[in-house]
Amino acid sequence: MNKRMIFFVVGRIISAEAALLALPALVSLIYLEKAGWAFLVTIGICAAAGFGISAISRPKSNTIYAGEGFAIVALGWMLMSVLGALPFSISGEVGYIDALFETVSGFTTTGGSVIPDCGTLSRGLLFWRAFTHWIGGMGVLIFIMAIIPNLSDRSIHIMRAEVPGPVVGKLVPRVKDTAKILYTIYIALTAAEAIFLLCGGMSLFESIVHAFSTAGTGGFGVYADSVASYSPYIQWVLAVFMLLFGVNFNLYYLIVMRKIGTALKSFELRVYISIVLVFSGVIFVDLFCNCAAFADTCVGDTVRTAVFHVSSFLTTTGFSTADFNSWPSLSQGLLFITLFLGGCAGSTAGGLKLSRVILLFKLAGRELKHLVHPRSVNSVEFEGKAVDEQTLFSVSTYFSIYMVFIGGTFFLLGFDPHINDFKTCLTSAVSCFNNVGPFFGYAGANGGFADYSVFSKLVLSFAMLFGRLEIYPLLLALTPSTWTKR
Amino acid sequence: MNKRMIFFVVGRIISAEAALLALPALVSLIYLEKAGWAFLVTIGICAAAGFGISAISRPKSNTIYAGEGFAIVALGWMLMSVLGALPFSISGEVGYIDALFETVSGFTTTGGSVIPDCGTLSRGLLFWRAFTHWIGGMGVLIFIMAIIPNLSDRSIHIMRAEVPGPVVGKLVPRVKDTAKILYTIYIALTAAEAIFLLCGGMSLFESIVHAFSTAGTGGFGVYADSVASYSPYIQWVLAVFMLLFGVNFNLYYLIVMRKIGTALKSFELRVYISIVLVFSGVIFVDLFCNCAAFADTCVGDTVRTAVFHVSSFLTTTGFSTADFNSWPSLSQGLLFITLFLGGCAGSTAGGLKLSRVILLFKLAGRELKHLVHPRSVNSVEFEGKAVDEQTLFSVSTYFSIYMVFIGGTFFLLGFDPHINDFKTCLTSAVSCFNNVGPFFGYAGANGGFADYSVFSKLVLSFAMLFGRLEIYPLLLALTPSTWTKR
Repeated sequence: MNKRMIFFVVGRIISAEAALLALPALVSLIYLEKAGWAFLVTIGICAAAGFGISAISRPKSNTIYAGEGFAIVALGWMLMSVLGALPFSISGEVGYIDALFETVSGFTTTGGSVIPDCGTLSRGLLFWRAFTHWIGGMGVLIFIMAIIPNLSDRSIHIMRAEVPGPVVGKLVPRVKDTAKILYTIYIALTAAEAIFLLCGGMSLFESIVHAFSTAGTGGFGVYADSVASYSPYIQWVLAVFMLLFGVNFNLYYLIVMRKIGTALKSFELRVYISIVLVFSGVIFVDLFCNCAAFADTCVGDTVRTAVFHVSSFLTTTGFSTADFNSWPSLSQGLLFITLFLGGCAGSTAGGLKLSRVILLFKLAGRELKHLVHPRSVNSVEFEGKAVDEQTLFSVSTYFSIYMVFIGGTFFLLGFDPHINDFKTCLTSAVSCFNNVGPFFGYAGANGGFADYSVFSKLVLSFAMLFGRLEIYPLLLALTPSTWTKR
Repeated sequence: MNKRMIFFVVGRIISAEAALLALPALVSLIYLEKAGWAFLVTIGICAAAGFGISAISRPKSNTIYAGEGFAIVALGWMLMSVLGALPFSISGEVGYIDALFETVSGFTTTGGSVIPDCGTLSRGLLFWRAFTHWIGGMGVLIFIMAIIPNLSDRSIHIMRAEVPGPVVGKLVPRVKDTAKILYTIYIALTAAEAIFLLCGGMSLFESIVHAFSTAGTGGFGVYADSVASYSPYIQWVLAVFMLLFGVNFNLYYLIVMRKIGTALKSFELRVYISIVLVFSGVIFVDLFCNCAAFADTCVGDTVRTAVFHVSSFLTTTGFSTADFNSWPSLSQGLLFITLFLGGCAGSTAGGLKLSRVILLFKLAGRELKHLVHPRSVNSVEFEGKAVDEQTLFSVSTYFSIYMVFIGGTFFLLGFDPHINDFKTCLTSAVSCFNNVGPFFGYAGANGGFADYSVFSKLVLSFAMLFGRLEIYPLLLALTPSTWTKR
């Protein structure tokens, strides 16, 4: 392991966090809030720690292999969360464990909250919560790769460790240019959403917060009832942009390059759209026919509620406009299944990612063929190309490990005497691991984690990190032998 | 497809069922029950249909490939259930859909019941319910292979399609001899259990019923409260025999061959024992400390309750001695996880089978190694041998398909307005698919499926069959292209 290189890049990450914290500090300054001091102190700590670590571990060699990539990503994300939680507790508004949960939930774009009424938070902290979504959505390391000069092209290993999905490709030959293109698209879409929200009469502050939160498919808002109190126009804008941020960003690049035809041919995109239409349709009918809460609601509102929640759960954002806990079990069951799916690979969404789910189905089809004709050799095709066997094995194995981790989280939550309920334990484990946020049972909407024990909050914080980084980086970083070998 | 061969063997299966029905008919005769007539009529129908089908489809060629094996098993099991349900409804005691559910639940060794109080059933039917467990546990086709002369040695394909678990081996070179050995062990263990139960003061009838039910890891008893009203001695005997029937039968063959050392070295066996000890231990502590229902119970009773339920759920039997619905969520969570595991491969237990779970974990370990050292080549070892890559791929893919099927069952149950509860839908889907029986939520113990809609009962019947046959045979038989090709 090139440990110097690892710590050098981790130092850079923390320095970058110091820079990023300037934005919420500015917000606190504008609103003349005390929390501004908390941000300034944290900036000082991050800058000192970041530059210090980088200075004492200047690397002798530039090599980064897979192992180093995983270690950088795992350490980087953990330290970012530990430090990013400081403003919450230095300002005195939130205790440290709660602050840590909130920050991990932010960076991992989960959006589950431990704050009973987030309306009581200062504006600087509300902004920071949403901004962590935005940073975590695209990945902080891609950001660093885009701005730091002379990182060797080995940095594809970092990108691979941080970007979710079964296959990571570069849009253009150089990793750095790929990172820049992705961030440009990301910023443009976020700005577009903020403008649409402004046009609906939302204040500038709330527009930016919700644009950040949607872009990262996070789910932190500014009110305790999530976005239920906003107008139908605003809710539709949010739903459309949640769906847009759940699409593979490579497709936007293709559209910019005027290859719209190629983009629309994407099989994953078609599956994504089909799921939204079918699931929304079934939930609409179920709510319309079987749910007392929607008996007096007009058709348009019921349609919006169905589309909104499918978009929110499928893209793992987690905004909510209604009490889905009172919905019939068919609708709850469908939402529960979407918790696992996630959006498209290469988007900011969490979960398994649709391309992985599609590959799993194709593998199943091949297995069936193989059973009947044991000597036949069939390759699996996806997006017009044959997928190599190693990738297929990885996808298949990932699914098993993923299920074991969700099962493990569920098991550990069972020790919490405060949430002594099967449904609450299971759905909150699934929801956190897939970085969605809301869950069924005990509390339901955002803010529901407030009564969980300290142990459960820590378990779920790790679950969110494991889920966002797709298990391996964190698992390897927590394995002692990773650090001793070679 | 050698369709003549398929129908020929299916005809034989139905004829065999006619023979097997003589036993419950005899029981009804002894107790002078009206149900005896129902059995005699059914025997007539089965014999006529069986010999008829075999006679008109005498095969021109003896070949059986994988496709034929799957088709025989799928058709055989479905027809056996359809015909085996007749005595329930001809006797007028149970409606046909309920009877079908009950018979599928019997043959698949699930043990979930739609009869609110099974104490009201006649003795012949109670005997038949338990006897279906016993037949389905070891597999009816193995039985036929053991008794029918001159089946070609191609019949390994039938065995492979019916016997659960990732790898099917023969104990001795000829399939037929293997089948005979397995059935001898099965009968000996069943007889031993019946004798132990008799010694505990149980009546002969109930001893046989419970021995059959335990042997098949089924779960049908004779009272509405399962086995809660029996003495601690009886409950311990049941627990021990449930565990014995969850062990790979190949190990008993090794023990008979005086290779006890080899048998005890089995890694799967060690994992099995460890799971029983650890899970029972945790549940005991949880019940002792956190469950109000056990506040006044002595330590011995709490230990027994914990061991009994872990044994019952892990081996997918489904007997119960307490209301686990009121248990704390940690205990419920552990039982929920055991629902998936199943016993050892080559036992009568359902579920994933431990050897498959172990292989999944080993695959995960290999994937981690591969991530750090992408060029390393590692084989996966199990029970002292390297597992070939095709088997590993199959295990990994099976798990994905299995999860999709459980998800699908859960989804379809959502349409049932009678069980409008997330926990009930989810746990009953998992429980039926893994052939366990009991579930959490709406009703809980056996007999809990009584209020389910007809649609849900049919969905769960298919789920039980898919689970028992490990998906592929039924899936292929229900795919039209299987029947048209070649």
